[in-house]
Amino acid sequence: DLPLALIAGPCQMESRDHALECAAAIKEIATRLNVGVVFKASFDKANRTSIKGARGMGLSAALPVFAEIRERYGMPVLTDVHENDQCAPVGEVVDVLQIPAFLCRQTDLLIAAAATGRVVNVKKGQFLAPWDMKNVVAKLIEGGNPNVLVTERGVSFGYNTLVTDMRALPIMAETTGAPVIFDATHSVQQPGGQGTSSGGQREFVPVLARAAVAVGVAGVFIETHPDPDKAPSDGPNMVPLNQFEALVARLQAFDRIAKDRAA
Amino acid sequence: DLPLALIAGPCQMESRDHALECAAAIKEIATRLNVGVVFKASFDKANRTSIKGARGMGLSAALPVFAEIRERYGMPVLTDVHENDQCAPVGEVVDVLQIPAFLCRQTDLLIAAAATGRVVNVKKGQFLAPWDMKNVVAKLIEGGNPNVLVTERGVSFGYNTLVTDMRALPIMAETTGAPVIFDATHSVQQPGGQGTSSGGQREFVPVLARAAVAVGVAGVFIETHPDPDKAPSDGPNMVPLNQFEALVARLQAFDRIAKDRAA
Amino acid sequence: DLPLALIAGPCQMESRDHALECAAAIKEIATRLNVGVVFKASFDKANRTSIKGARGMGLSAALPVFAEIRERYGMPVLTDVHENDQCAPVGEVVDVLQIPAFLCRQTDLLIAAAATGRVVNVKKGQFLAPWDMKNVVAKLIEGGNPNVLVTERGVSFGYNTLVTDMRALPIMAETTGAPVIFDATHSVQQPGGQGTSSGGQREFVPVLARAAVAVGVAGVFIETHPDPDKAPSDGPNMVPLNQFEALVARLQAFDRIAKDRAA
Amino acid sequence: DLPLALIAGPCQMESRDHALECAAAIKEIATRLNVGVVFKASFDKANRTSIKGARGMGLSAALPVFAEIRERYGMPVLTDVHENDQCAPVGEVVDVLQIPAFLCRQTDLLIAAAATGRVVNVKKGQFLAPWDMKNVVAKLIEGGNPNVLVTERGVSFGYNTLVTDMRALPIMAETTGAPVIFDATHSVQQPGGQGTSSGGQREFVPVLARAAVAVGVAGVFIETHPDPDKAPSDGPNMVPLNQFEALVARLQAFDRIAKDRAA
Repeated sequence: DLPLALIAGPCQMESRDHALECAAAIKEIATRLNVGVVFKASFDKANRTSIKGARGMGLSAALPVFAEIRERYGMPVLTDVHENDQCAPVGEVVDVLQIPAFLCRQTDLLIAAAATGRVVNVKKGQFLAPWDMKNVVAKLIEGGNPNVLVTERGVSFGYNTLVTDMRALPIMAETTGAPVIFDATHSVQQPGGQGTSSGGQREFVPVLARAAVAVGVAGVFIETHPDPDKAPSDGPNMVPLNQFEALVARLQAFDRIAKDRAA
Repeated sequence: DLPLALIAGPCQMESRDHALECAAAIKEIATRLNVGVVFKASFDKANRTSIKGARGMGLSAALPVFAEIRERYGMPVLTDVHENDQCAPVGEVVDVLQIPAFLCRQTDLLIAAAATGRVVNVKKGQFLAPWDMKNVVAKLIEGGNPNVLVTERGVSFGYNTLVTDMRALPIMAETTGAPVIFDATHSVQQPGGQGTSSGGQREFVPVLARAAVAVGVAGVFIETHPDPDKAPSDGPNMVPLNQFEALVARLQAFDRIAKDRAA
Repeated sequence: DLPLALIAGPCQMESRDHALECAAAIKEIATRLNVGVVFKASFDKANRTSIKGARGMGLSAALPVFAEIRERYGMPVLTDVHENDQCAPVGEVVDVLQIPAFLCRQTDLLIAAAATGRVVNVKKGQFLAPWDMKNVVAKLIEGGNPNVLVTERGVSFGYNTLVTDMRALPIMAETTGAPVIFDATHSVQQPGGQGTSSGGQREFVPVLARAAVAVGVAGVFIETHPDPDKAPSDGPNMVPLNQFEALVARLQAFDRIAKDRAA
Repeated sequence: DLPLALIAGPCQMESRDHALECAAAIKEIATRLNVGVVFKASFDKANRTSIKGARGMGLSAALPVFAEIRERYGMPVLTDVHENDQCAPVGEVVDVLQIPAFLCRQTDLLIAAAATGRVVNVKKGQFLAPWDMKNVVAKLIEGGNPNVLVTERGVSFGYNTLVTDMRALPIMAETTGAPVIFDATHSVQQPGGQGTSSGGQREFVPVLARAAVAVGVAGVFIETHPDPDKAPSDGPNMVPLNQFEALVARLQAFDRIAKDRAA
């Protein structure tokens, strides 16, 4: 039972400057708190609610920035892939390839991600039972890559609403054997809840993150941003950067109890 | 933010001896752990899945036993009421009247319970949104009784399944103003899941209880029994008495972090 | 496979005059359409969202009006019971006792209703799987009364929303052996959806009723009112009386196809 | 209100012979019943539950067979696409490109499908509210292609279960303006319900299809197979070919009532 790790960053890579600013701040906090962290940003939001939603910098502009962040801050980086042929170039630069929840059953994408040899983090589909993630992980393992993380990010509960079933965390750990991450940002999303974009409930990020850490997880995924209300996507559910450190410190305290390392 | 309290006991009052045995054990543990505890048992299981399910000792046999437990152990007692005219006699003996989840919208039962002047603990219906509990609490307050507890015990999620939405805990606290209890026993019930009785997942009691305490609750409701597999009801989701103390001690550690009283 | 029957009337018995007006209109329509009909009205709304919601005329004022409707229009009458001791007096006057959905697992109420010897119509709880209604019906049969109807009225689907699973209709027919009624009025309710009262979607009453009749049911339950927007309860989901006849005529056409009696 | 149309065929294109056999039988039935029909088969099952599930003939082998069916039987053909670069070649041969439910929010896939100029049939995601399909359709229209169909195939309801909300049919019609298809085959799927493959409830195909047609739809999507229990995928929910004609004839009778064309 290793101490709690973090996957953190802004939703989108908005620009090189923005990404470096976020990465620097996150790295500083992680160092102060002595917590392992993977920097996360998306180069493309491929499934925005509306076609008019901003999609990000794109693959070729983003990869050098990821490389720069890795090198400058000595911090591993993660991004999500949406198409088979993105996997190889992304895998040359980033440490963790993430499979979006909607795509968690697309066999070819899983195989292409597995083939990079990088760690693959698969988000559980909003339509999937936790015990069914074993089939998803099996595709990656049979694709030759046992370095898998699985992420809980809520399950459909009526319309425009997700609910987090905390039982899913130990169930996924037991049935897949993979480390389990809790995505506190997308679990509080209200899909399609604002007409042409998804809403969110930022105030519940700490609530669900505390619950998940008390249950016991390998890591927590939290999107954070210097000014979430101006962010092009997931603003309603990102944590302001200036509240991030206090939140993580609290989660570490719960983690110590959860993993019996309390003084 | 007071320290975590407990509502604990066997599902049914099976007999005087059985109830006293459970009460003695629970009192001892509570004293060792310095945790406030209310003893819980049901005198009647009024909504068993099957008409053949055992229903308990009945009102008149149970009341003297509750009185004895109160006096002998100096421990407040709680039981659930199902009909309007049970409230007055029950209210003469027990400290907390509990309204079952299925009955949480029955106006006359709420009014009759309120009229006793005792604390009333209302369980949120499996069919109710957390913000709708404010209407339930308003019925009690307009019935003249502001001493109300509200209890989360899961919400319907497909067939034969409940899910606990941890957001419900702060939502109920904020919208009702009442202390919030988390019922870790019935939240892991699988309603009707065994054909002619409800199933349960005892292994998830600590999982959900840890999550709820980390989010922050006034108390936890846990049914415990010396030999759950022989219990006439809710056996599959009761915690064996010999595992109860360790579970509560762990919950207290989470509670200290949640309420910022950690050293 | 008998032709489609109706259970129809206003939500509440608001006054003698109002009830007679509704009953006369419904009887006239039923005669024109040659459809069997049971007149429905509630003497008490025992589980209003808010304590301030109007509750109806009460038992003693309502029973003579039911008796008058029965005699004057030669039409059987139905009302719902909420407490054990209401069953005997109600059973002396009405033809069908209805068990509300929230109360469908209250053993004593079922037994008391069964003991009247009248037909008992049990609504399926919003929290119940269709196959679990067999346990409810078994309570009535073991209570000595095999004259049972079961009614579908939607199942919890997220917060403040019900969904109708059309598979429930044949599942209940097969597992309980009882005639199945589809309640088109409460299936379009939005529980608690208006803050202190439940909302509704009147425009979907014909949608769901057509679907249910095409699947095949013994009867349809539809609340209708001369002026639903002024009704004290369930106004948002009652059908205006002046649209009722056209709706039923259409349902009869579907019923003929469903039961293979089409020319 | 045009008469009911059909999208029908086996789940997978298993071989040229198999596809031609199915197409011939379906064409014959459609001619006898005077119903418009589009032949459906998948060249690749890209999101099987398990990596070991059979995936079909593949794109290049399947396209000539689709062309042959079109020409030989004068019947338009439909297949589903999973990757952007499949759209152009598929669009050269088939009449309708279908977007799988899991992929209904992948902007680039929608744009690529729209660019073919062919009709695009988008399945509503199991995680999507019916009113949110307007955003999906808007992506296609802004992609230059207004020839869109939308398909209901059930919505997540707890774990391993879908439910069909019949209200979704008129809601989608009204909010998207597109003709609405009801997929009676996948709506009865039990996702992941058999461990390493999805289960299904073939007996409910006629139940849900009747309901949907009575509500009113432009068409029904039904997978049919000469020997479903030997089919490599979706066997549990395909209708045996020898029961297909009677089912469709019954649906046509309901459709006539629904669209007021009854004699």
